[in-house]
Amino acid sequence: MKTVPLKKITVVTEAVLEDHLVREFRDLGARGYTITEARGDGHRGVRASQVEGNNIRVEMIVSAEVADRILEHVAKQYFTYYAMIAYVQDVEVVRGDKYV
Amino acid sequence: MKTVPLKKITVVTEAVLEDHLVREFRDLGARGYTITEARGDGHRGVRASQVEGNNIRVEMIVSAEVADRILEHVAKQYFTYYAMIAYVQDVEVVRGDKYV
Amino acid sequence: MKTVPLKKITVVTEAVLEDHLVREFRDLGARGYTITEARGDGHRGVRASQVEGNNIRVEMIVSAEVADRILEHVAKQYFTYYAMIAYVQDVEVVRGDKYV
Repeated sequence: MKTVPLKKITVVTEAVLEDHLVREFRDLGARGYTITEARGDGHRGVRASQVEGNNIRVEMIVSAEVADRILEHVAKQYFTYYAMIAYVQDVEVVRGDKYV
Repeated sequence: MKTVPLKKITVVTEAVLEDHLVREFRDLGARGYTITEARGDGHRGVRASQVEGNNIRVEMIVSAEVADRILEHVAKQYFTYYAMIAYVQDVEVVRGDKYV
Repeated sequence: MKTVPLKKITVVTEAVLEDHLVREFRDLGARGYTITEARGDGHRGVRASQVEGNNIRVEMIVSAEVADRILEHVAKQYFTYYAMIAYVQDVEVVRGDKYV
């Protein structure tokens, strides 16, 4: 099966940010996203207890360039004041040309 | 810790396909699967608005051969008429011999 | 964007184990975790039908050392008597220094 090497970005954060993030990720070049409800604790010190039970996990398949732009954006915009985890992984995508 | 290198397939698609997919994935060699509810938008043009709020994400740990067979199958069978994302990643699995 | 190479551990298992696992993972060095509800079948033979509809998927971003410790622990402690899948993947994490 021919696949296309792309990047998967995962952002776990407070549910209240969903609308903002989705709009911004599109502006930065993401062609789509998948959201699952999540809960968690830790990683972010003082905010941890406030986000428990009300998190979202946003996933996007994007090019390396868009991945970089999105991570740069969330690091600058959200990491100081919001509980957020963001990471990137390599993926091999079926019909990956649709995502770039 | 000794782990076994395997493939993780992720398929995000319309919830209505769940029973079909699960049966087919087993027939193609998957020994099990994990499903989470998801929602999303985009990646697939015209169908996007119809799948919002009613998606599933199916994950399977399989051998490279089974991964290839499953991706080939969904690309041929579903990509034309259904909203679907499918990708594969490398994983290192504890007691991975159970999955092949 | 500067990221830090870390490990993502995923454990899919019976929901009844959540409190135990979370406590143990912290003791083993995890600084946080994300949990999503999941359902599934297979991979684990006889227990499969009992865990359907009542699984959790626990994810943690950790160092390679902590990853190893956690996988070792769950393999020894849970794999014999509980339905459980555990695997590790490479991730590139924004502000990854917070996780080690």
